[in-house]
Amino acid sequence: MRELLRVAPAATPVDLATIDARSTPGLPGVAVTGADRKGWARGQVRQVGAELARQQEMLFATAAAQARTAGLPAEAGPGRRVLLVLQAMDCGGKDGTIKRVAGAMNPLGLHIRSFGAPTDEELRHDFLWRIRRALPPPGYVGVFNRSHYEDVLIARVESLVDEATWRTRYDEINAFERELAADGVSIVKVMLHISHAEQGERLMQRLTDPRKHWKYQPADVDARARWDDYQAAYAEALRRCGTEAAPWFVVPADRKWYRDWAVAHLLRETFAELPLGYPAADFDVARERQRLAGELAAAPQPR
Amino acid sequence: MRELLRVAPAATPVDLATIDARSTPGLPGVAVTGADRKGWARGQVRQVGAELARQQEMLFATAAAQARTAGLPAEAGPGRRVLLVLQAMDCGGKDGTIKRVAGAMNPLGLHIRSFGAPTDEELRHDFLWRIRRALPPPGYVGVFNRSHYEDVLIARVESLVDEATWRTRYDEINAFERELAADGVSIVKVMLHISHAEQGERLMQRLTDPRKHWKYQPADVDARARWDDYQAAYAEALRRCGTEAAPWFVVPADRKWYRDWAVAHLLRETFAELPLGYPAADFDVARERQRLAGELAAAPQPR
Repeated sequence: MRELLRVAPAATPVDLATIDARSTPGLPGVAVTGADRKGWARGQVRQVGAELARQQEMLFATAAAQARTAGLPAEAGPGRRVLLVLQAMDCGGKDGTIKRVAGAMNPLGLHIRSFGAPTDEELRHDFLWRIRRALPPPGYVGVFNRSHYEDVLIARVESLVDEATWRTRYDEINAFERELAADGVSIVKVMLHISHAEQGERLMQRLTDPRKHWKYQPADVDARARWDDYQAAYAEALRRCGTEAAPWFVVPADRKWYRDWAVAHLLRETFAELPLGYPAADFDVARERQRLAGELAAAPQPR
Repeated sequence: MRELLRVAPAATPVDLATIDARSTPGLPGVAVTGADRKGWARGQVRQVGAELARQQEMLFATAAAQARTAGLPAEAGPGRRVLLVLQAMDCGGKDGTIKRVAGAMNPLGLHIRSFGAPTDEELRHDFLWRIRRALPPPGYVGVFNRSHYEDVLIARVESLVDEATWRTRYDEINAFERELAADGVSIVKVMLHISHAEQGERLMQRLTDPRKHWKYQPADVDARARWDDYQAAYAEALRRCGTEAAPWFVVPADRKWYRDWAVAHLLRETFAELPLGYPAADFDVARERQRLAGELAAAPQPR
């Protein structure tokens, strides 16, 4: 999946219009078609999620042991972590992806953070300030629902800052992500790529179903009117920040079941590159067994 | 479930030894027995979890709308929230409960916080300081994996503070929780109640399975040696802090499937007391539909 969905590093411009948002790259030619594919893919997501949960537990156990050895609190230890960054146009399916993919993992190991319009306090700091505070601790899988990329997307298209400011941010982001990678963070950046037509349908659904009204804002249609500008801003972010240390992946997202399946597999391949295992006990196992066994034998009374 | 498992407010002492940790209060007399019960209960947890996820979404949507109306950031709005506080002896099953029960909900709506030994910074503040910082924002379901109750449990049994200090904390906790309840937090405090024998078995499992060594610490057996002191400390916390505003529930927890089933139902009954529904749109739905429909008709070209 990584190779199929990855944005080639630097150089060549990315043309999102050439990527079919209804396509399903990497989907095995299994003997399931049509409606069956959806059920099959959902089952796969649950299975991969359970596997990721087991692997995340190893990551956590290892990180905890490393912190103990170093005499540090768990969150300051040198342990590894994974960070999934989700970006998309409105209705692109960020929430749905988190619900299905992260929802198939163990919630205790997740560190999910959503980024909206910056608060006054956040605006008083550098754009990466709030991002640094939201990073997953060692041993966790972080999920960013939007991210620092908003600062070269909406900030650029809606002119929230001047051009000189957002132009310098690509390099700042690359330096930041290099630093994270060196610090043991495996970064997986995913753009959920939906088509203009699909976005129109999903927005209309939000206006039709009263249970979805709360997800709609009139500004969504204003942003939709600037679709091409947003796609161009995405293309530049993908091209300039698709690095070795922190690659970008474009996941066709018109089909929700494929989207979830692909993101689950990207995470799985990220975990496959990590040195996973349970740490050795930092106490004398035989001695502790003996101590506990003695205690169990000595206290036979029901309590 | 609430009435069955609830600790009667104040007055009467609580005798945990009289509550059978293997019992299954409230379990319907369904035509399932033995091993079947486990599968049935697990299925129920998934079903209730999905229901809770839908209800939490309403809570979130309502809280978001209320904050918007008040012109406040979402986390400062007046919306309601739920807080599940989990306490237990070592091996009591806090992590497993979170994995199964919270894991059946939508991770986007969860706010899980674990409390370990206080850091130096935390020790420089009042014991409720770190608790206040970890409260779920409006619209969320918070889960506390251990809590401020450690400050009248381990702090008391291990004499981490002097008696005069922990003695005043019951009243401080009650005042704090009354304040939370008045602020729209529905608090569900659960003690997962395991037997001394079951704890012994689970500790031995952790010493036997190398994949579980990381969960074991020699201090666990030291704490086990003070079992009666801990049970007495629990009993006093249950008696003194089982209030109308923030009731305590004792969930028999030797059987993991029952434990999860009971906690899921306690949450369900908590949600049942909330005024749930989707907020009305704060924009002109007909006008927006017209605007979007016009835009969709005008832009028929594929993009």
